Amino acid sequence: MKPLIVINFKTYAESTGANAVRLATAASKVAEDSGVTMVVVPQAADIFQVAREVDIPVYAQHIDGIQFGGYTGHILPEALAEAGARGTLINHSERRLELAEIDAANQAAKRANLATIICTNNVSTTKAAASLCPDFVAIEPPELIGSGIPVSKANPEVVTGAVAAAMGVKVLCGAGISKGEDVKAAIELGTQGVLLASGVTKAADPEAALRGLVAFV
Amino acid sequence: MKPLIVINFKTYAESTGANAVRLATAASKVAEDSGVTMVVVPQAADIFQVAREVDIPVYAQHIDGIQFGGYTGHILPEALAEAGARGTLINHSERRLELAEIDAANQAAKRANLATIICTNNVSTTKAAASLCPDFVAIEPPELIGSGIPVSKANPEVVTGAVAAAMGVKVLCGAGISKGEDVKAAIELGTQGVLLASGVTKAADPEAALRGLVAFV
Amino acid sequence: MKPLIVINFKTYAESTGANAVRLATAASKVAEDSGVTMVVVPQAADIFQVAREVDIPVYAQHIDGIQFGGYTGHILPEALAEAGARGTLINHSERRLELAEIDAANQAAKRANLATIICTNNVSTTKAAASLCPDFVAIEPPELIGSGIPVSKANPEVVTGAVAAAMGVKVLCGAGISKGEDVKAAIELGTQGVLLASGVTKAADPEAALRGLVAFV
Amino acid sequence: MKPLIVINFKTYAESTGANAVRLATAASKVAEDSGVTMVVVPQAADIFQVAREVDIPVYAQHIDGIQFGGYTGHILPEALAEAGARGTLINHSERRLELAEIDAANQAAKRANLATIICTNNVSTTKAAASLCPDFVAIEPPELIGSGIPVSKANPEVVTGAVAAAMGVKVLCGAGISKGEDVKAAIELGTQGVLLASGVTKAADPEAALRGLVAFV
Repeated sequence: MKPLIVINFKTYAESTGANAVRLATAASKVAEDSGVTMVVVPQAADIFQVAREVDIPVYAQHIDGIQFGGYTGHILPEALAEAGARGTLINHSERRLELAEIDAANQAAKRANLATIICTNNVSTTKAAASLCPDFVAIEPPELIGSGIPVSKANPEVVTGAVAAAMGVKVLCGAGISKGEDVKAAIELGTQGVLLASGVTKAADPEAALRGLVAFV
Repeated sequence: MKPLIVINFKTYAESTGANAVRLATAASKVAEDSGVTMVVVPQAADIFQVAREVDIPVYAQHIDGIQFGGYTGHILPEALAEAGARGTLINHSERRLELAEIDAANQAAKRANLATIICTNNVSTTKAAASLCPDFVAIEPPELIGSGIPVSKANPEVVTGAVAAAMGVKVLCGAGISKGEDVKAAIELGTQGVLLASGVTKAADPEAALRGLVAFV
Repeated sequence: MKPLIVINFKTYAESTGANAVRLATAASKVAEDSGVTMVVVPQAADIFQVAREVDIPVYAQHIDGIQFGGYTGHILPEALAEAGARGTLINHSERRLELAEIDAANQAAKRANLATIICTNNVSTTKAAASLCPDFVAIEPPELIGSGIPVSKANPEVVTGAVAAAMGVKVLCGAGISKGEDVKAAIELGTQGVLLASGVTKAADPEAALRGLVAFV
Repeated sequence: MKPLIVINFKTYAESTGANAVRLATAASKVAEDSGVTMVVVPQAADIFQVAREVDIPVYAQHIDGIQFGGYTGHILPEALAEAGARGTLINHSERRLELAEIDAANQAAKRANLATIICTNNVSTTKAAASLCPDFVAIEPPELIGSGIPVSKANPEVVTGAVAAAMGVKVLCGAGISKGEDVKAAIELGTQGVLLASGVTKAADPEAALRGLVAFV
């Protein structure tokens, strides 16, 4: 099975504005060459220009579970969809939401035809998130985020536990992923792929880092 | 004195995506014809395309007081600036922030060359917000937002109180503003202009509503 | 089956301080006379004195999912337990929590030997909450809270849906409950009882209101 | 001038429940012996029993800016006052509030006859907080909290800056305070005293630590 690689651009200098377009273009090239699906996740302000430049799926980092209306400073799913987004993260560890908000955001995303990835921190919240029927859950033990220690190696049983708890909902895993062997291990543990960030965005050569991720395919 | 008119697009259908560009274009035309400065405030996802189409200032509805880094789902001032924003609202009543966040956001905006409008709900928070030295404070009594009853008429002493409390920082007023006479009254109470939303965005003919706002000039 | 009646004191004048003790004493009397289990839920500041005066279970309105440590202004499960609490609400609609916080609070409560009632707003969040294995979930459609229209009448299928979704976890229902017939209906729909507030706390004669709730037993 | 010593009990095991009463009793003894005013700040659940046992002022760690009503899980100023509190911290760095909430909490506290200490993180937020007219502002640079490095030594100019910015509102300083010389330095920099926590609560001998704090008086 070919993995799904979801690249969270966060708010790094290396993946903001013109750099976001450049990184998305690199991901697009590697996706085409390898046949692996790569999803890029730039900031809301960058989605429009990134989506015009690449054909791979562009996801948002966060949406609010709102409808059209008076919600100053919120992220409206329909605005992202019109700007070119095709999906969104929900409840990333750096942007946690209340349970009722996660549910509302998941439903609002579907209404706007955005695929959803609900992020979770452990097996029990993965089970809860999966019960809301998103397209994916992405488990990321907070203590490993940005650590360089891949969750698939540090804590494989949290990944297999999440896959079991998700009861059929597709699972991604994240935290500490930077190499092809980490992706391979994630797939072998039953996930569909990985969610990663600094391993690519902060790499000296991001395109080479992306090629390394899929070299094993 | 010519007023400053700040138009908050919120997340209304009438001011999202292509509609945001259309409304900004109308504001641009009225600004040019009247000589009044109009600022448009679309959603983060729409700033890039709006800023490419109009020459009037484009502000954001919210920023986070962050720097480049790992802040998934946050609004980075530098990303907005690169997308074309020239300023931002901070602490709108629909997106309230902690005091320390307002301070951080105000400083982060200045670092990214974004003008700042800190929104407040009464005289005492106006004084507190003004002490942080933003470019503007905008007082909007929450009970009047979207009411159609202009703050300049319902509660003129909260406006004059805010102007006094701001100790030299420029003041806008908002809530219930929809007509030229409301703008005129706001100026006469000592403000630099108004912050408004549904009075324009939800008007049957937004361009006519904008012309009405500045007819008295 | 005898119902469980959980009385949320909120921050009403009628159920704060000495009034909290008085109301808890009334509930204690009615519980003893009727054989129905009544749980009283005063504010954190009132738990100590209420728990000294009554033998019925005293629950807290909220806990934070924390351990002993540096958490100024938080509600520590162990402090409540030592003050006399035997359980707690989690994620009440007036005090919503992030998903990861609900999970942490549920685990922290169990560590401190506090029973848990996770509050939810609809069927899908009930399913998610139940997957975290609390002692109870309590479904309260927000639009009916304080309405005087009992959820068991206005929306019986949300109650039966919640019971089905909870997959064995015990369910309470709330919102608009004020009479014995509402409690009876709740039981007939498959719940263990009700969570209510103003129907008792704001009643002209709270003890009479409590007796009315269990008259059908 | 005799200093004011405010001891934040946080949620440490050493200052919860019966331990809170014990620590407050020690503070009471040292206050009486030294003539220094000591304020103890236990958790909400502990205020009732602490206030019954000691005559020194008992403050809360947090209040919500609410009135009597439907606010499940919130901290009502009137409930704290009835339980025996005479003041409260507001906006502690571990329990930050929105600007409008700080203003509302400060006003709600005064309505309930609670003295207020608004906590701040730097000079500019101190100026903003002071403009709301609390009884005290307490500046605590977050990077020094729990560090053991006293703010009066690490960053004296932030303390003198806060005193100047507070424009007559009394100032406390905190972060890293554990010794009498730190208190002395704080007074010499223009403050009324200190806000401290682990330096006392986690001391091997808290009473001795308290005596050390006031030995210079």
